Amino acid sequence: MRNIKLTLEYDGTGYFGFQKQPSKVTIQSSLEKALSKLFNQKMKIAAASGRTDRGVHALGQVVNFQTESKLKTSQILKGLNSYLPKDIVVKRVVNEKKNFHARYSAKRKTYEYSVWNHPVRSALYLNRVCHFPYELDFTKVKRALKILEGKHDFKSFANRDPSREAKLEKGKGTVRRIEEFKLIKKGSLLRFQVSADGFLYNMVRILVGTVLEFGMGRISERELRGLLRAPNRAKAGRTMPSEGLTLISVSY
Amino acid sequence: MRNIKLTLEYDGTGYFGFQKQPSKVTIQSSLEKALSKLFNQKMKIAAASGRTDRGVHALGQVVNFQTESKLKTSQILKGLNSYLPKDIVVKRVVNEKKNFHARYSAKRKTYEYSVWNHPVRSALYLNRVCHFPYELDFTKVKRALKILEGKHDFKSFANRDPSREAKLEKGKGTVRRIEEFKLIKKGSLLRFQVSADGFLYNMVRILVGTVLEFGMGRISERELRGLLRAPNRAKAGRTMPSEGLTLISVSY
Repeated sequence: MRNIKLTLEYDGTGYFGFQKQPSKVTIQSSLEKALSKLFNQKMKIAAASGRTDRGVHALGQVVNFQTESKLKTSQILKGLNSYLPKDIVVKRVVNEKKNFHARYSAKRKTYEYSVWNHPVRSALYLNRVCHFPYELDFTKVKRALKILEGKHDFKSFANRDPSREAKLEKGKGTVRRIEEFKLIKKGSLLRFQVSADGFLYNMVRILVGTVLEFGMGRISERELRGLLRAPNRAKAGRTMPSEGLTLISVSY
Repeated sequence: MRNIKLTLEYDGTGYFGFQKQPSKVTIQSSLEKALSKLFNQKMKIAAASGRTDRGVHALGQVVNFQTESKLKTSQILKGLNSYLPKDIVVKRVVNEKKNFHARYSAKRKTYEYSVWNHPVRSALYLNRVCHFPYELDFTKVKRALKILEGKHDFKSFANRDPSREAKLEKGKGTVRRIEEFKLIKKGSLLRFQVSADGFLYNMVRILVGTVLEFGMGRISERELRGLLRAPNRAKAGRTMPSEGLTLISVSY
């Protein structure tokens, strides 16, 4: 039995999130359909970030699956890309060790959240950025990123996960380590990049919402530090809309 | 009577080009509809690049129109953006002199053509780039750009314009001056930027097609120089697909 790892890129605009759902088109259902066509049998995959919401994009989502097929990795790549819709593409196909699991073997994930910070909305970045027309103090924004970096209990920055997978994570608690949280600014386009050993449900979107409210002066430094000491979801920022979010990469 | 200039950004994916056409949704028809709503009367515009094809995008298309309305420019901006679909946005509204014409007053236009140069297609840049999987010699690519810069007869790099506006341009001949033709390369994403005092029909798309064929070794330097001396559309490169093309700016 082979254990195969795929790296995927997709525009999530037209999909009801990653995870399979009855009678809805999702990334997982589209990928499993292409796999089943290629291997001529029902296929199931595991994903690094299976809980991503409707509209979230990926440059480097990772999944794995088992097969007895003897197809070369290059044939799997070509075959899948010919069956997949145009807004999903397999970028890499690799033979992995037996015990590799796209989700449980992941050591680090990097997400990017894009904000269009201009009084007038963007048409060309539609579905890829969140429009945020308010003025920001970028010294404050960078201060917030620094405060949030490191190992903390991020319970203030998580929503309740409505999916069944929440159960699987119960043992892990809400402590995570943000290894890097940076801002790449190019004109009105703000790209927040955050790497961590794991993320709670909606954590990136709430982190960015909180950083923006901090940058507007709506949340003070004392309040921000308080959120890391004593969990209080209500006092953190709002959950930013999903279209600004892209899963950049997963490290193993 | 006021003469008002608008700068527009749009994603052209969902439109049948810029110019009005019976029973088809175009950028012009969408904009004139929004203007007519705002001013409560039938409105008509003139555009800097009115002949752009289906799927072409813009970061800085310019149009103008006449009105007797007393609305402030800021009110026109807000009003239009509330009526326009999400993939079209007005970025600037300016009062212009009586004799300003978006098309005939234009001194220079800059276009960008984006190519995804990788064996595997792109999902995230879908509708925004053209997939070109072949290997390129970038020394050659840059050489071609240099050869094409300057004042030349670009008849080899033009298709016949099927629209009625072709007549208006008859007097102008096919000589144009390319002021700059450069390549910005970031990984697999190639962005060709070209500025000129004017462009023939499909000229940017044929120029890029020719540059790519030159970079693959399919067109020699002697042949390329020959195309500038003696018009021969058949020996120039193919017309690249429209989705890679974006009108960046128009100068007056």
